[in-house]
Amino acid sequence: MDNIKNYVQQHKQRFIDELIELLKIPSVSADSAYSQDVINTADAVKASLEKAGCDKVELCETPGYPIVYGEKIIDPNLPTVLVYGHYDVQPPDPVDLWTSPPFEPVIRKTELHPEGAIFARGACDDKGQMYMHVKALEYMVQNNALPCNVKFMIEGEEEVGSPSLAWFVERNQEKLANDVILISDTGMISNQQPSITTGLRGLSYVEVEVTGPNRDLHSGLYGGAVANPINILAKMIAQLHDENNHITIPGFYDKVEELTREERDEMAKAPFSLDAYKKALDIEDVYGETDYTTNERNSIRPTLDVNGIWGGYTGEGAKTVIASKAFAKISMRLVPDQDWNEITELFTKHFTSIAPKGVTVKVKPHHGGQAYVTPIDSIGYRAAAAAYEESFGIKPIPVRSGGSIPIVALFEKELKSKTIMMGFGLDSDAIHSPNEHYGIFNYMKGIETIPLFYKHFTEMSK
Amino acid sequence: MDNIKNYVQQHKQRFIDELIELLKIPSVSADSAYSQDVINTADAVKASLEKAGCDKVELCETPGYPIVYGEKIIDPNLPTVLVYGHYDVQPPDPVDLWTSPPFEPVIRKTELHPEGAIFARGACDDKGQMYMHVKALEYMVQNNALPCNVKFMIEGEEEVGSPSLAWFVERNQEKLANDVILISDTGMISNQQPSITTGLRGLSYVEVEVTGPNRDLHSGLYGGAVANPINILAKMIAQLHDENNHITIPGFYDKVEELTREERDEMAKAPFSLDAYKKALDIEDVYGETDYTTNERNSIRPTLDVNGIWGGYTGEGAKTVIASKAFAKISMRLVPDQDWNEITELFTKHFTSIAPKGVTVKVKPHHGGQAYVTPIDSIGYRAAAAAYEESFGIKPIPVRSGGSIPIVALFEKELKSKTIMMGFGLDSDAIHSPNEHYGIFNYMKGIETIPLFYKHFTEMSK
Repeated sequence: MDNIKNYVQQHKQRFIDELIELLKIPSVSADSAYSQDVINTADAVKASLEKAGCDKVELCETPGYPIVYGEKIIDPNLPTVLVYGHYDVQPPDPVDLWTSPPFEPVIRKTELHPEGAIFARGACDDKGQMYMHVKALEYMVQNNALPCNVKFMIEGEEEVGSPSLAWFVERNQEKLANDVILISDTGMISNQQPSITTGLRGLSYVEVEVTGPNRDLHSGLYGGAVANPINILAKMIAQLHDENNHITIPGFYDKVEELTREERDEMAKAPFSLDAYKKALDIEDVYGETDYTTNERNSIRPTLDVNGIWGGYTGEGAKTVIASKAFAKISMRLVPDQDWNEITELFTKHFTSIAPKGVTVKVKPHHGGQAYVTPIDSIGYRAAAAAYEESFGIKPIPVRSGGSIPIVALFEKELKSKTIMMGFGLDSDAIHSPNEHYGIFNYMKGIETIPLFYKHFTEMSK
Repeated sequence: MDNIKNYVQQHKQRFIDELIELLKIPSVSADSAYSQDVINTADAVKASLEKAGCDKVELCETPGYPIVYGEKIIDPNLPTVLVYGHYDVQPPDPVDLWTSPPFEPVIRKTELHPEGAIFARGACDDKGQMYMHVKALEYMVQNNALPCNVKFMIEGEEEVGSPSLAWFVERNQEKLANDVILISDTGMISNQQPSITTGLRGLSYVEVEVTGPNRDLHSGLYGGAVANPINILAKMIAQLHDENNHITIPGFYDKVEELTREERDEMAKAPFSLDAYKKALDIEDVYGETDYTTNERNSIRPTLDVNGIWGGYTGEGAKTVIASKAFAKISMRLVPDQDWNEITELFTKHFTSIAPKGVTVKVKPHHGGQAYVTPIDSIGYRAAAAAYEESFGIKPIPVRSGGSIPIVALFEKELKSKTIMMGFGLDSDAIHSPNEHYGIFNYMKGIETIPLFYKHFTEMSK
């Protein structure tokens, strides 16, 4: 324990500098304009794994961006940890809301990060958190402290729904064989109170297109006489929730797991201040499904949100036009037992059925993933809890998160092993938003904690 | 009559070439990137009036773009016609839907324009229709056929609501004194059946902004727990119409003039094919206020349409974000007796009131104008009707249009004279849309018909 603390302290500046170099490459997987940058990032991750001490590192081709695979096998009889992470990042827009450019990392202090935080797209999600594992390996190799085998699988399409990962995992079950999967791509309650994510929501992401007249029309001449695709789209979106903010898609809740009163009471014990939450977001009140608390709404309940909408004239000034088409990107967060393919079908059927005559509707499924729950009595969870306790001096709390890492359910299905989500980010790190950042404290604490997981997991597996 | 026909035939190619030069200048008043082009267009219009025979032409400065003023006073005792038009154009976007670039005019034949039509932004609205008056003056001056005085007032801000025109008119009542105002900025039923617009709808144009959380959020972590500004905006827009497509803003209909059954029956006599209308727009059905016909919905009834909407991620691929803000541009077409300032206030009050806690709403009024009706027993209307009948060989039909020329009501108030709307465009000319065009037949017929109006108006005024 002292060893790792000392090592991290000694190499702190280099660890930060290396991460900053990685963050400078704009690996935006959603936008094909950045495709060369995404590939360059894969190369950089490959080089870093070689340098950290992996024996075998390769770029595995897929139908999409390559997956970086690395391994260090010290003894086939020892357990194997498979580390999963991603080297791609979310699009940085709206770019004008960033205080400093998204791909020119800078360190600034914040209220929650008095030691400073690195501001850059991907700082927390997921380059910073993924790179902790690379540096933890470096420590273990340099100090003869690696107690088991390790494999890395770092992909470049997580932010667009991992379309190639299932393809890769299905074809490489032996290569990826492991005893536990370790991911740092989630958050914890605070730097004083670590937590481990034990549940993830599933996801169905679709794009809808509403077409009215076959061309843009003058709103003076046609206004009021034809279906305006924007008004209709607004009306259709509004109909997706009822007055209690329940989702109205028939069958949507059929398979939703209802938690017992006891389970909900247990959840309610996690520290949470509604006032602080509202203040942090600068909102007068929260908003959501009747009869559920804020923490329930964003973890154990499925949701439907419009992530983007556009149509008609959106430039400077005024244009009196009735657009021919209007569009929206809509995502649904799902909970255990909801199947994302089934939900996508239910959505498509319902959304198409509520369109009035005079418009036509297309629904294009983007991607999706199943929800997941980690059992807290598993060796993996217990090892992670012990690692946090040793590193932070306080027991971590298990929490169910609202986010989705769609491939976790896939891993369980294909690789028959449990996933442990050791996240070190904070909610306030603004992932997917302008000014994303990752605390220096969190980055260093992650590098310290990971080798302890290896130690406890190996011991508990004996 | 033969004279003018011959003159137009003889100079046809030059008339077309001159208009094409004017259409090449992208005078988009809504976008400040084009401001020099707007000014260059004013210069070109000024030069054309000088060349056509005006004695005095000037660029009148305003708080916005200059107004081109020109006059030819032949005898203070004779009547004076004031020609109004505009040299600015609508933004050309979506540019990728244009068959040829919007500011590189080309002539193509269409089903309705077998002689060919000029395709360019502004071809019909309003450079083409405005320039007919310049060429009609040229004919009258060249052939000693000008029977009265003429003044021109051509502005450059019509497409953004004429913010400087009221300022100018109020300060120049004597300069602009006239007996009748003549505008060609509307359409007619068909090339075989001319019509004169006797009613215009008013307009209130606003932009709304809905703000939720103070930054973009990850939809996994916050989805379902905070008000999503896009969902809320959609819901608020949906609430602006009830199930009968009546507008729900309290007080909105209070001053709406209800037409009698007789008046509505008279209107219904205008030739109209609902099947042809649906076919032309490629829609399965029309859509609008219950208990009104299509022609009533777009002329004698007020309407509310979203002209543009945007928020969140609208790029390629998927981004799981809850946007901090969502926006829409909304316009309301108004009918006689509705005051646009009052309607803008009613909208603002109502829209703000329906916002749930958790979001804040801003409403920014863009511009507006009052509705207008021209009496068909006025000298101006009768002179125009006689001119069309002489030129087309068939009596024109008076029609009420759904469009707005917000300054017509202002003219009546400030200049105490009636406005006659002699429009030569067709509905299918795609004004405000990609592939705007103006028929060569219509352009030439306009130049032929205008001098006949001068002749009849002067005679009837004796």
